[in-house]
Amino acid sequence: MTKKPLILITNDDGISAPGIRALIEVMKQLGEVVVVAPDSPQSAMGHAITINNTLFINKVNFDSEVKEEYSCSGTPVDCVKLAVNEILKQKPDLCVSGVNHGSNSSINVIYSGTMSAAVEAGIEGIPAIGFSLLDYNWNADFEPVKNAIKTIASQVLENGLPEGVILNVNFPKLKEDEIKGIKVCRQAKAFWKEEFDKRKTPQGKDYYWLTGEFINQDNGEDTDEWALANGFISIVPVQFDLTAHHAIQKLNTYKFN
Amino acid sequence: MTKKPLILITNDDGISAPGIRALIEVMKQLGEVVVVAPDSPQSAMGHAITINNTLFINKVNFDSEVKEEYSCSGTPVDCVKLAVNEILKQKPDLCVSGVNHGSNSSINVIYSGTMSAAVEAGIEGIPAIGFSLLDYNWNADFEPVKNAIKTIASQVLENGLPEGVILNVNFPKLKEDEIKGIKVCRQAKAFWKEEFDKRKTPQGKDYYWLTGEFINQDNGEDTDEWALANGFISIVPVQFDLTAHHAIQKLNTYKFN
Repeated sequence: MTKKPLILITNDDGISAPGIRALIEVMKQLGEVVVVAPDSPQSAMGHAITINNTLFINKVNFDSEVKEEYSCSGTPVDCVKLAVNEILKQKPDLCVSGVNHGSNSSINVIYSGTMSAAVEAGIEGIPAIGFSLLDYNWNADFEPVKNAIKTIASQVLENGLPEGVILNVNFPKLKEDEIKGIKVCRQAKAFWKEEFDKRKTPQGKDYYWLTGEFINQDNGEDTDEWALANGFISIVPVQFDLTAHHAIQKLNTYKFN
Repeated sequence: MTKKPLILITNDDGISAPGIRALIEVMKQLGEVVVVAPDSPQSAMGHAITINNTLFINKVNFDSEVKEEYSCSGTPVDCVKLAVNEILKQKPDLCVSGVNHGSNSSINVIYSGTMSAAVEAGIEGIPAIGFSLLDYNWNADFEPVKNAIKTIASQVLENGLPEGVILNVNFPKLKEDEIKGIKVCRQAKAFWKEEFDKRKTPQGKDYYWLTGEFINQDNGEDTDEWALANGFISIVPVQFDLTAHHAIQKLNTYKFN
């Protein structure tokens, strides 16, 4: 009998979020599952790590079919580091993060705790996927995307991933039979136009809430935004070599020396 | 008379750190300076933003030659968003972040609050540079790098930067006459090998401190690590399009559909 693959699961919405419970349901069908996830929501934490504070982990038991499950006081990236180095003491065969309640397409990848956890696993040499559903609701319906999650994770378990590449998977908010298929895409060029909601404390001091509008400037049909808007699941291969190789030649013409 | 350029300065070590004060000293020679920086250290915050909490800003006055200066309760990325959208209500001509107390070379770029602030400015279309000195000491000596900061910032003010590109500048810890020059580089392939320091609270509960060892697996002489180890200042052009374009063809051979 072939040994079952070891699958590490994390997220950024916290260990009790319906999105991670849905992901656990699917992954139990593919391998032996270990969960290490934040004890509270950590959305928009980017690639933050905890270096100036202590980290706590607690063993929990929500699901008897999960091998081990832990909640962690740190960020999503801390969870991966603790899981690999302290809990598993070995590299899992796959790390999956999510399912995030809300989009991580386009520029959102850079703010995303879900994707940063997956990227951290990628840096450590583990095949990794971040999953996100375009529905910010806590009670979002993850049933329509479970089969696609299983397909994508199975393909990565079977084929691995190119070195230094992590998958950023986003699901449109559609019924399963409305989804047109899966598209490999590039990240659309988009940004957030911030609007700060300025208020006063009961004591009269100004404060702000960050809000904003997502602006997509990219009409390319090879982008994740196009795929999602047209009923497809988007997969963007993401890398952590941030070097803009194409800019090196140009910069060598600057008078730095 | 030509109008002076407007320069936004931020960092992740907090508004009172010697590194940002050194950067302000230099930038005052190049333009009109506005400072918006965290009110407390925010190291390793990555690209975190504050969406589930309130943001406060306080006008401060450390330096009569600075046009406006604010401390902010948020992350480095929050500082840039607040500065551009709420304080300046216009795009500055340049955004500089740092000088960080400690390296942001190689994979450190991804954990760095200093660089995330610069990247956020880049996303908003502002030429941006993150500066870091390879000395974690609070009392690090920034004098030897002031001339190089001035040269690099001047060149960016004069020539701009390619679209979607931000500069990650790291300085070796050397005397000024020991520095061999400035090199445009790629990000070295390296990672952190974590080691968790496990301790017990006075109440007997386990907790952890994240520590680790930096492992460079890349001997390339075109890398930032090589440049720094050989007495050069490294400049890596960094991008926020994370798409691993080279992997798209390969992924299209996977059986996703």
